[in-house]
Amino acid sequence: MKENNDKLHNLRHSLAHLLAAAVLKLYPGTKNTIGPSIEDGFYYDFDFTSPISDKDLPKIEKKMKEILKSWKGFESEEKTEKEAKEYFLKNEYKIELINEITGKGEKITFYTCGSFTDLCRGGHLENPSKEIKSDSFKLDRVAGAYWRGNEKNKMLTRIYGLAFETKEELETYINQREEALKRDHKKLGKELDLFLFSETVGKGLPLFTPKGTTIRRELERFIVDEEIKRGYLHVMTPDIAKLDLYKKSGHYPHYKDSMYAPIKIDEDEFMLRPMTCPHHFELYLGKPHSYRELPMRIAELAQLYRYEQSGELMGLIRVRTFCLADAHIICASEEQAIEEIGGALDLIEYVTSVFGLKLDVDYRYRLSLGDRNNTEKYYKNDSAWEKGEKLLRELMKNRKSNFEEVKDEAAFYGPKIDIQMKNAGGKEDTAFTVQYDFCMPERFDLTYTGEDGKPHRAFVIHRSSIGCIERIMALLIEKYAGAFPLWLSPVQVKVIPVRTNHNEYAKQIFELLKENNIRVELDDEEANLGGKVRDAKNNKIPYWIVIGDKEIEAKKITLESRDNGQLGQISKKELLTKLTQEIKEKK
Amino acid sequence: MKENNDKLHNLRHSLAHLLAAAVLKLYPGTKNTIGPSIEDGFYYDFDFTSPISDKDLPKIEKKMKEILKSWKGFESEEKTEKEAKEYFLKNEYKIELINEITGKGEKITFYTCGSFTDLCRGGHLENPSKEIKSDSFKLDRVAGAYWRGNEKNKMLTRIYGLAFETKEELETYINQREEALKRDHKKLGKELDLFLFSETVGKGLPLFTPKGTTIRRELERFIVDEEIKRGYLHVMTPDIAKLDLYKKSGHYPHYKDSMYAPIKIDEDEFMLRPMTCPHHFELYLGKPHSYRELPMRIAELAQLYRYEQSGELMGLIRVRTFCLADAHIICASEEQAIEEIGGALDLIEYVTSVFGLKLDVDYRYRLSLGDRNNTEKYYKNDSAWEKGEKLLRELMKNRKSNFEEVKDEAAFYGPKIDIQMKNAGGKEDTAFTVQYDFCMPERFDLTYTGEDGKPHRAFVIHRSSIGCIERIMALLIEKYAGAFPLWLSPVQVKVIPVRTNHNEYAKQIFELLKENNIRVELDDEEANLGGKVRDAKNNKIPYWIVIGDKEIEAKKITLESRDNGQLGQISKKELLTKLTQEIKEKK
Repeated sequence: MKENNDKLHNLRHSLAHLLAAAVLKLYPGTKNTIGPSIEDGFYYDFDFTSPISDKDLPKIEKKMKEILKSWKGFESEEKTEKEAKEYFLKNEYKIELINEITGKGEKITFYTCGSFTDLCRGGHLENPSKEIKSDSFKLDRVAGAYWRGNEKNKMLTRIYGLAFETKEELETYINQREEALKRDHKKLGKELDLFLFSETVGKGLPLFTPKGTTIRRELERFIVDEEIKRGYLHVMTPDIAKLDLYKKSGHYPHYKDSMYAPIKIDEDEFMLRPMTCPHHFELYLGKPHSYRELPMRIAELAQLYRYEQSGELMGLIRVRTFCLADAHIICASEEQAIEEIGGALDLIEYVTSVFGLKLDVDYRYRLSLGDRNNTEKYYKNDSAWEKGEKLLRELMKNRKSNFEEVKDEAAFYGPKIDIQMKNAGGKEDTAFTVQYDFCMPERFDLTYTGEDGKPHRAFVIHRSSIGCIERIMALLIEKYAGAFPLWLSPVQVKVIPVRTNHNEYAKQIFELLKENNIRVELDDEEANLGGKVRDAKNNKIPYWIVIGDKEIEAKKITLESRDNGQLGQISKKELLTKLTQEIKEKK
Repeated sequence: MKENNDKLHNLRHSLAHLLAAAVLKLYPGTKNTIGPSIEDGFYYDFDFTSPISDKDLPKIEKKMKEILKSWKGFESEEKTEKEAKEYFLKNEYKIELINEITGKGEKITFYTCGSFTDLCRGGHLENPSKEIKSDSFKLDRVAGAYWRGNEKNKMLTRIYGLAFETKEELETYINQREEALKRDHKKLGKELDLFLFSETVGKGLPLFTPKGTTIRRELERFIVDEEIKRGYLHVMTPDIAKLDLYKKSGHYPHYKDSMYAPIKIDEDEFMLRPMTCPHHFELYLGKPHSYRELPMRIAELAQLYRYEQSGELMGLIRVRTFCLADAHIICASEEQAIEEIGGALDLIEYVTSVFGLKLDVDYRYRLSLGDRNNTEKYYKNDSAWEKGEKLLRELMKNRKSNFEEVKDEAAFYGPKIDIQMKNAGGKEDTAFTVQYDFCMPERFDLTYTGEDGKPHRAFVIHRSSIGCIERIMALLIEKYAGAFPLWLSPVQVKVIPVRTNHNEYAKQIFELLKENNIRVELDDEEANLGGKVRDAKNNKIPYWIVIGDKEIEAKKITLESRDNGQLGQISKKELLTKLTQEIKEKK
């Protein structure tokens, strides 16, 4: 692997040089700055004398291919500071780099290939003309980039290129990227009118439209009802609390950086909650509890607030407020706690199966461990950490689940099992999590009365089932590419009369479906049938019903499916049975 | 009425004198201060040399009745400042009052009845011994009260008395008060384990227990589903936004005092939202709209934040965060707006009918008007105010609804119709509201494309349907005295096996009900049957099922109702039909 990676890096880095050579040939007077290899290719940042655009890329690419033929090998040469600065006399960027290198006492090396020379640390192919296939790379796009990433510096022009070892790999990558872009939840969210952001409301604070809200409501009711079936006790607690509460829980020093600033009023400071746990613990403390009540599964659809840096924000995946399907299970013993973790994983596996997500394909398990040496980040109790990690490891082995162990990814109060999922763009995030906590029961003095009539220390499991509603929505939009299953579709059926004289019967069908709680739209505008059907398809509506003379005569309807095409004429009763059954089964 | 009120006032005020006379007789050295008549009687504030308690009240009351016999009439006498101060030489409270009276240039009057003289402005009965029935008043309780209500002053002892014209009226009042106290939602909320407050979380921030959350969830789903049926488009928008948004809406100066302080981070200031409207307007502005889409009824269960003074907080009635069933209806014309207000009132009348609340009995309409002279409080546009108020008045008259007009109770952006409801304690609050807004459409530049293809200014209706979930919960707890109808009951059915050998069959019934989404509890502990039934009754569970030998033999169950007693043996199928029907009908 390492060797391949190095080879690909050298290829991409050599192409960055080639790009600079071509640009300097085509645009004399341009100042070249730096050009590294990246994940899918390379880029180079330039200070052009006049702006260029994506339109100029084919010309540059052509020039690169011309030059490539003459690039037989890189030659390196060590230079003195003076020599280097003389070479880049009019290039203040390179001068700055040279000053930095000499400041660190490092050597200055120049690399030359063909007639192009650059200040460089090395890492190239031996024979570019031979090793680079001219159809395995492609200039991708032009973008603005501040010199050294600092917005106080000048904005330069960055040219991105894609590069692989073969033409096939390049094409596969481009196709996958296009496919992912089509599935991008930000793009689909806009096209399908599911959510939006407003500059006046604020970054990272999504506003869900009626359609997006329908999906969210279905998800919320689904998980609440499922959890209640499984013995969870749903509660509702406030989204703010006095700072004291988060000091008591210990979240304040640990999560301070991602919490919103305090709200000072009168003598108190209030905080937007970053976590639900202290709220549930206060509720638990509201009255004494017996061992008979445990395990007590306290659940909530909890709105939480974390102040992510604006650069970290990403559609619905990373926002500044989100609704977590959260729960805290108060347990009487370690054994009960481990059993409950198993139950929580069962629920997660059920929920993902409803969405058609597969373990080890769409998501994977990660056992996130603490770090005994980092007492600032993690609650100090070595033996509890050892035992907790061991118990979780055993549980995962007993379940025969694949999982990866990762150090230094635990919660501050204990180890956890994370369910990792990738978005369409390939970035992985934690979708759901089940956490073992031996710290909070002490901090909050969570006890129960045992069979012996005496108070005992409780154990706590923190877990999410469906995760953050916003994030799972994003992942599902991308998974389904916006074509939601019937139960989640904002509009489930569209009724389309062929001409206005079919409107009356169409209205009857519309009302019938509405009365039966099916989300239905009637498109009775005087417009072209083809256009109406196209609109249904563009909106990825699962079913549409075309009503014309034949249907009225037969007192039937013709059903067409987004996924399965024409389904033929059926009776109203058959229609209702089919739809309600499919909604119920969440298929 | 006026005459009666005056008489009752004079009676109560005379009794305050009588109370002071009795106290000074029994506790020489006590300093009497002031003693007015109040809503249900009177009080007098004293500075006692040693503390007294409720236990001392019968003795004082007895002394009052003794003295009363000799009280044939009040005589008034004007005093000079010097004379008055000499009379109250050792009473610094009266000296302070005398200074105030002379400071204002008013006359000092003393009133004497029997052997008791007090500094007083008058307002007494002509002949107390004849006009006061000794069984029509009663000393009520002792409480602490700061001199002149200022917490920097000395804490005095206040003795409250109840007083009416007849014994019957007194008894009726006491009974009603006891009844109201039994219904008090704060008391029932605790007894029935519906919600609690935590000092660590903060005052006025309720935590709903699993049982309280069940009621809340039922209410929330009920109103969301009903609104969707009526063409509302439910959305979800964030609970915080940049301060800019509330400056844009104009809420910031108008609601500043009741808003939480800003949260300053980076360059921005964020606010907890006190209102939903600006969020819905931003959503509306997310894309252009046609006249065909109007009226557009944008609805949300919106969590709102208002920082009430701690003295204003009251159970779930007045809290520091609440969930409003809010909506903003964007209309194309004034006519459409008035029609939509009518539709909103229809919805309110439907919702209240489901709760068994009656117009003009349990709630009443109030037309809340602006004040043309108060341009600080109200948006300036006289003709719009005149027209809006006229339209609302006409609407109410056309609906043939009784309503009261009240000045200076409007929203800052327009007049409104308030639905006023009293809690068990008799305090009236606005439960729901429908508001006409001619201000926000301008501020937010809310437009739509008309049939003419040109942009037109929209009109906006703000309305709540079920009001704040917290407040309606409080009012319903009090209305039902905790005995919720089946659909709202946290536990709908309790299954009680007579002895442990009936547990298996009881479990079957329990599972059957659970599978059919009925909230059921199984009480299979080895305990006394009577105790189990008493527990069901105390928890106001609508139905319980006792399972014994007879039931197992007949393969039936015996159903007992909280409201209708024994309902006899029925089959499992009959049980399911009965319960699901009753839940569906919300009876």
